[in-house]
Amino acid sequence: MAALPDHTGAKRALYLEDLSVGDRFQSGEHALDAAQIKAFARQFDPQPFHTDEEAAKNTFFGGLAASGWHTAALTMKLLVESGLPLAEGVIGSGGELQWPKPTRPGDVLHVVGEVIEIVPSRSKPGRAMVTMRCRTLNQYGDVVQNFTPKLVVHARPS
Amino acid sequence: MAALPDHTGAKRALYLEDLSVGDRFQSGEHALDAAQIKAFARQFDPQPFHTDEEAAKNTFFGGLAASGWHTAALTMKLLVESGLPLAEGVIGSGGELQWPKPTRPGDVLHVVGEVIEIVPSRSKPGRAMVTMRCRTLNQYGDVVQNFTPKLVVHARPS
Repeated sequence: MAALPDHTGAKRALYLEDLSVGDRFQSGEHALDAAQIKAFARQFDPQPFHTDEEAAKNTFFGGLAASGWHTAALTMKLLVESGLPLAEGVIGSGGELQWPKPTRPGDVLHVVGEVIEIVPSRSKPGRAMVTMRCRTLNQYGDVVQNFTPKLVVHARPS
Repeated sequence: MAALPDHTGAKRALYLEDLSVGDRFQSGEHALDAAQIKAFARQFDPQPFHTDEEAAKNTFFGGLAASGWHTAALTMKLLVESGLPLAEGVIGSGGELQWPKPTRPGDVLHVVGEVIEIVPSRSKPGRAMVTMRCRTLNQYGDVVQNFTPKLVVHARPS
């Protein structure tokens, strides 16, 4: 049960043979600010609690918060750039997504993940569906996103 | 079981009292091109099949495809701008997400949704958790995303 390389380690292209249930990884960090939150929201989630500090005060969130989709997109960036160096790419078919707490301006995010299931494909030899548990945390250790993706992972070419 | 207003109807701020299980809605459209796909991917999902037409040919996707998170973010934009005019905002706590087919350059997306469950909050009177089934379709009627969000919906202020 070797740990996957973290962001301080050398890059290594991982194939199916390199993964085992219980393997863990940790990504690098991303620092989020109000400008990023508002830029993403203007494009994809234009609601007052994501685009305007003043207007956000009298909403459900009580202040500016990132779109959950922004948290999700940043989680993917961290996985791709530093968390999970899969040789054929990080390719997901979906999964269960939860945002237990809002992401706020000033948050510094990182992702921790664990391999929880590996199911070889019956129809496509050399492939498996790998289920991971990926938690996105802020600098206080609060979980701002839980995601349980199913990833398509390829075996090492023979 | 009144249909929710579609994007051709007048904007109307909906409260909990306005929603019933079985209510359906349809959003406006978003036309996606290669430039948008690559711009999103460079920022949030920098992998060759999302950033480079040539490099994408020899990958799992066999050609340029949008990041699933781009499809998800555009789905949110369509819901917020035209699909689901909730008075206090479209506020999700998460849900099950699937991408059955890739989204491609040239795709024109829209979202169809249905209210499938309404569970009043016990601890917070005047609120309910509303589960919806939201499908994102391309111009051929192919489903490119299934999402089953749980939304926080507020009652009309008394």
